[in-house]
Amino acid sequence: MLEISEIFNAAAVLKGVARKTAIIPAPKLNPEAEIFLKTENLQLTGSFKLRGAYYKISQLTDEEKARGVIACSAGNHAQGVALGATHNGIKSLICLPAGAPLSKIEATRNYGAEVCLVPGVYDDAYAHAMELQQKHGYCFVHPFDDPKVIAGQGTIGLEILEQMPDVEAVIVPIGGGGLISGVAYAIKTLRPDVKVYGVQSSGAPSMAESLKEGKLCHLNDVSTIADGIAVKEPGINTFEMCNKYVDEVVTVTDDEIAAAILALIEQQKLVAEGAGAVAVAAAMFNRLPVKGKKTVCLVSGGNIDVNTLSRVITRGMAKSGRNFTFTVDLADKPGQLSGVCSAVGERGGNIISVSHDRINTSTAINGCIIRLEVETRDAGHIDDIRQTLLGLGYKVLN
Amino acid sequence: MLEISEIFNAAAVLKGVARKTAIIPAPKLNPEAEIFLKTENLQLTGSFKLRGAYYKISQLTDEEKARGVIACSAGNHAQGVALGATHNGIKSLICLPAGAPLSKIEATRNYGAEVCLVPGVYDDAYAHAMELQQKHGYCFVHPFDDPKVIAGQGTIGLEILEQMPDVEAVIVPIGGGGLISGVAYAIKTLRPDVKVYGVQSSGAPSMAESLKEGKLCHLNDVSTIADGIAVKEPGINTFEMCNKYVDEVVTVTDDEIAAAILALIEQQKLVAEGAGAVAVAAAMFNRLPVKGKKTVCLVSGGNIDVNTLSRVITRGMAKSGRNFTFTVDLADKPGQLSGVCSAVGERGGNIISVSHDRINTSTAINGCIIRLEVETRDAGHIDDIRQTLLGLGYKVLN
Repeated sequence: MLEISEIFNAAAVLKGVARKTAIIPAPKLNPEAEIFLKTENLQLTGSFKLRGAYYKISQLTDEEKARGVIACSAGNHAQGVALGATHNGIKSLICLPAGAPLSKIEATRNYGAEVCLVPGVYDDAYAHAMELQQKHGYCFVHPFDDPKVIAGQGTIGLEILEQMPDVEAVIVPIGGGGLISGVAYAIKTLRPDVKVYGVQSSGAPSMAESLKEGKLCHLNDVSTIADGIAVKEPGINTFEMCNKYVDEVVTVTDDEIAAAILALIEQQKLVAEGAGAVAVAAAMFNRLPVKGKKTVCLVSGGNIDVNTLSRVITRGMAKSGRNFTFTVDLADKPGQLSGVCSAVGERGGNIISVSHDRINTSTAINGCIIRLEVETRDAGHIDDIRQTLLGLGYKVLN
Repeated sequence: MLEISEIFNAAAVLKGVARKTAIIPAPKLNPEAEIFLKTENLQLTGSFKLRGAYYKISQLTDEEKARGVIACSAGNHAQGVALGATHNGIKSLICLPAGAPLSKIEATRNYGAEVCLVPGVYDDAYAHAMELQQKHGYCFVHPFDDPKVIAGQGTIGLEILEQMPDVEAVIVPIGGGGLISGVAYAIKTLRPDVKVYGVQSSGAPSMAESLKEGKLCHLNDVSTIADGIAVKEPGINTFEMCNKYVDEVVTVTDDEIAAAILALIEQQKLVAEGAGAVAVAAAMFNRLPVKGKKTVCLVSGGNIDVNTLSRVITRGMAKSGRNFTFTVDLADKPGQLSGVCSAVGERGGNIISVSHDRINTSTAINGCIIRLEVETRDAGHIDDIRQTLLGLGYKVLN
């Protein structure tokens, strides 16, 4: 079993390798609590995973090091293992599902790993990694269910206690449970008065379900924008440690996660990936008893694909009334489109795009439908534009 | 004139108010240099402006404090003055042009200022602020051309020298010149061996032009996505200080600024506004002699409108081949659209939107044009999809 001395040892090994990431106040995320962010999205490789992978690799015997390491991951763990192995001067082979984003494949290669693209999904890549490991005797670096990996992640717990001695609660994302196991163990061992809470996505609640059932549960399907914590089954070690050291585990929805990502961008100028934002989401939407408490939310990573980020922003903007697509049923005669456009402009709306459709079967035969995508200030501004158009006699359909 | 003791005094006053923002390594931004970021986008209020405004206000006489302060700004200075005044227990009135983004108006109000919305542009708001100042005897807090404000910004120079004693070059954004005047004065006084470079937007190069001409230049038009540094004329004090203490001033284009914003998001997980990203842009695109040098780029602020951010991301993605709109000229018969869509899907492209146009006059009378917006991995992937479609006999027009 893990000893606290091992976490201190991991901290010593990681010194000069992993960044001691800053804790930043986030007063606006939930005015009823005192929220702070432990910014592991600013960690080297863009996530905390470097800590566990690096420490695990550093503790291999010379004989194990000579054989090299293998891992399977579509994301942050891959980059952590690659960098950890390269720093320790040993060979690493990472199996990735062939459909993984090119940016992640490139990043893994750039950290010095050999990449093996396996057709299929994560499970196929995992099976292939196991095959290669048995065949060539590589050392397998598990993404979460390994005491050394857990000890490495636990160094974040030590840092939080050192950087903020008056902390009262810590909120940690949970996928397989490696991060929270290390953090909770470190904190509860040294400061049992500090609460440690876990958060999962409601689309992948494997640890939450397992704790409720009192035994390991396997989910057949997981689906969430927080792909970094979309894990079907917790580890044996991590399940036991969560059971023993974590005060409560809750879930948040994809919409809440998207709102948290947007709030982190707007209010904190920080980019978080879905998994990285679940602790913030739980604090923002009062899922946990942190009212009035000095609370650290662990922002575990920032490796979000920019395509996804763009969609999250668009969705968040629409939700907060800063973007609206007006649908207007027009008589198909000259001057109608420019009339609508100038009315929108006069009310301060900024037109982003126009689509114009004459053949929609639901309109009158001499009519047409236009759709105007408009940048707006808020819901009141949208309504102001709508009323102006209606007042001018235009048929606004939404 | 400014004395170095005043900057140390400002640092003492700002202790516990302004955050000592972290310096973060950014190894990928320019592999030929050693780039670090001074993250003032993570400063309270989202920009460095708090420092100068707060220090200026703290140094007013009791009689001046009793009368209250006034400022004119559409952005970061407004929030800095509002928070500075509220912390010092005095009244603040901020004139904003009526078209300012609602988010900035709200933020200014939330920091405790009274907001006066003036019809027109910045110059109108400024004229109105001057009128009110004369009428009511408020103390005007200038956004840059004031020695106390400059001293406050100069505390960033002290922090850089303390946090990174082996720094060799510092790159600083220039609008009116208050930030770089303070930083350059502090650094050149204490460590004349460290280079200090300034960066402006090529759409608003007022300081660059003034230094070249050897006298204050006034620009009639400024246009740049870096709205925080779109200043028509430098200050008298800041011009003299830049002339004396700054080694070189260069400009960067809006495209370079957009690329820097995107790189900060992807590689550093940090959100910067246009003005905040110009120093990074200059380092990325080798506009300055920093090759092999330990260089700190000052990321001055992160208050970018999310609508703008979304557009910057979209543009950056298109430039890097991660998004492409294919235009295909189809025979207008059943099955054509699904044929194209499935071919794109089989090659790993993710279709975001389809527009379908039968009445374009440039197509054959029985033809139609479809536009498919597709998420792609890179330029090679786009070409792969294009070749596949051409191979199947579809007329791809771009």
